[in-house]
Amino acid sequence: MIRVPTLFLDVKRCKKNIEKMAAKAKRHGIEFRPHAKTHQSLEISKWFKEVGVTKLTVSSLKMAEYFSEEWIDITVAFPTNILEIQTINKLAKKIQLNLCVENIEVLEFLNDHLEHPLGIFLKIDTGYNRTGIAVDNYKLINTLLLKMSEQKFLTFKGFLAHAGHSYKCRSKEAIEAVHQKSKEQLLLLKNQFKDQYPNLIISLGDTPGCSVSENFSGIDEIRPGNFVFYDLTQNIIGSNDLNEIAVAMACPIVAKHLNRNEIVIYGGGIHFSKDRIEDPENGVVFGRIVEKKGESWGRCVPKMFLKSLSQEHGIVSVPKAIIDDYKIGDLLWILPVHSCMAADLMKELHTADGEVFSMM
Amino acid sequence: MIRVPTLFLDVKRCKKNIEKMAAKAKRHGIEFRPHAKTHQSLEISKWFKEVGVTKLTVSSLKMAEYFSEEWIDITVAFPTNILEIQTINKLAKKIQLNLCVENIEVLEFLNDHLEHPLGIFLKIDTGYNRTGIAVDNYKLINTLLLKMSEQKFLTFKGFLAHAGHSYKCRSKEAIEAVHQKSKEQLLLLKNQFKDQYPNLIISLGDTPGCSVSENFSGIDEIRPGNFVFYDLTQNIIGSNDLNEIAVAMACPIVAKHLNRNEIVIYGGGIHFSKDRIEDPENGVVFGRIVEKKGESWGRCVPKMFLKSLSQEHGIVSVPKAIIDDYKIGDLLWILPVHSCMAADLMKELHTADGEVFSMM
Repeated sequence: MIRVPTLFLDVKRCKKNIEKMAAKAKRHGIEFRPHAKTHQSLEISKWFKEVGVTKLTVSSLKMAEYFSEEWIDITVAFPTNILEIQTINKLAKKIQLNLCVENIEVLEFLNDHLEHPLGIFLKIDTGYNRTGIAVDNYKLINTLLLKMSEQKFLTFKGFLAHAGHSYKCRSKEAIEAVHQKSKEQLLLLKNQFKDQYPNLIISLGDTPGCSVSENFSGIDEIRPGNFVFYDLTQNIIGSNDLNEIAVAMACPIVAKHLNRNEIVIYGGGIHFSKDRIEDPENGVVFGRIVEKKGESWGRCVPKMFLKSLSQEHGIVSVPKAIIDDYKIGDLLWILPVHSCMAADLMKELHTADGEVFSMM
Repeated sequence: MIRVPTLFLDVKRCKKNIEKMAAKAKRHGIEFRPHAKTHQSLEISKWFKEVGVTKLTVSSLKMAEYFSEEWIDITVAFPTNILEIQTINKLAKKIQLNLCVENIEVLEFLNDHLEHPLGIFLKIDTGYNRTGIAVDNYKLINTLLLKMSEQKFLTFKGFLAHAGHSYKCRSKEAIEAVHQKSKEQLLLLKNQFKDQYPNLIISLGDTPGCSVSENFSGIDEIRPGNFVFYDLTQNIIGSNDLNEIAVAMACPIVAKHLNRNEIVIYGGGIHFSKDRIEDPENGVVFGRIVEKKGESWGRCVPKMFLKSLSQEHGIVSVPKAIIDDYKIGDLLWILPVHSCMAADLMKELHTADGEVFSMM
């Protein structure tokens, strides 16, 4: 019995999301190296093995350590943190570890401290402007390639980008445009360096682009992560339908305020995170309420949404006509705005069968 | 050695914050029942015992269970979640447990399922509009009091309010106004019911009001929580000086982008939470950088702030003139926007002496 906020996983939807993305990668003849930061679960990572996946992406060395129990080829898609050199050496000894580098300081540090071979991706910025080498900064790229060629433990693997500016899109067409622009920029790079490095990989990966596009020509590898669960953010961007969202939080109703058509739930920022979307219809939204249906959940209840969050309280706006359908002690089922953050906070995923998947 | 994002506690500042609030409560002759949701640490809760505190506030039954190892009088300042009746009975047997009630359904449920005596506070809404009984809804209050008087395990303790609308204030004067208004409303209630319930308690508690005001006449108990650490949110509200903030996150620098005067740190939403403030000078801010100083930290570096957060990345805006002072592999020290959320995420607090306080 559910007594406190609990994050539920719809296993069927999740496996369908995995199969769909794996099929797309296969159809286009590209490597599928899924990002594990959303599910952070060894168990769920095994579902990727079932569809032929052999390589993983993670966002921290801690996560790489966790997944190295099961996976032997892991890319850390985060700028290398040189303070964790001990962990890097430990992992580089155990598995095929690939790191992201974007400056000379890190290469020099690795040269001085590495004890085992590593793969290096140069992190490229195709317009997101979070981090990475500007895609046209050939001078820096050449400097780094030269430096790498002198270092015995470093193997240049290719160019890696995250087109995170796709998160600003609000339609499939806009996502496709960002995806194609990033792809074209990376292919220019590939053409420039392929004679020198014939095996170089172009690795691109964001859930919006990988969900929407059917044009990956020239791309060697994709690394989407969020698609495993999807969420309201991805839906508003245009990546997925609401019925593909594979996680929902069950929250007890603890109070009702009929005068303002609000329900108070046990479920706050420490469960959902404070991530929000701006919904054209409802304004700031922290989650949407779905109908409970069999072992899963059905459609979103129109105009019923999580309007604010404190540490443990959530305030749900409810249409006047249906507020009497909900009683104190009932559970509300809520789609999260950002499934990566909600899963990271909850630390475990429950299924309708009573199974519990522990996370990192 | 610090290698990954680490939350540091300045023990001196923290103890000073505790002593200052305890002294204020003593000066005004009011009970000090601090909220433990910010620190969530048994160790830190003992520092309150050192200044004479004997009662605690928490925000969940899980937190009540955790603190019941050390504390024998705990109020759960959250609408009672009837689905946790087993935990309620377990705790009510062990300690003096006080719950918040605001509707008849919960009282009736408790009547049917309680096995041990409980204290009940009626949760009153003095204008925050999150939850609670409207302060002038005497009809509902009378109904609930009557119901309680018929139930053998329930003892009416008093009226409890959280003037959370003080968080919208941006000056000490505005905070004082919210505090006084809430206090006056509660005193009307007290006058109305004191003949019938001579021992009833008026419990008010929000860090802004308790930090700023010196007027508590008629209030019997205060329950501030955040003041134990304070943070940038409380500072912008007007509750505290920046040098009273007792926690800072140490984050490794992993990349620099001179062309846009930005530093990339290992430290993201899973460390800080996505809570933000709107700073008149800098716009949206997720943290402010402080100078490292001896065993603690000093002033905020002007115009240097955390401007955005992904899951693990943080982007720091840095004045051009000083960006060369920071190197890859250095640590940045950052004051959090919301210390409750950052502490909840980090799960442990480190001190300069190498001590580690584990949390719930």
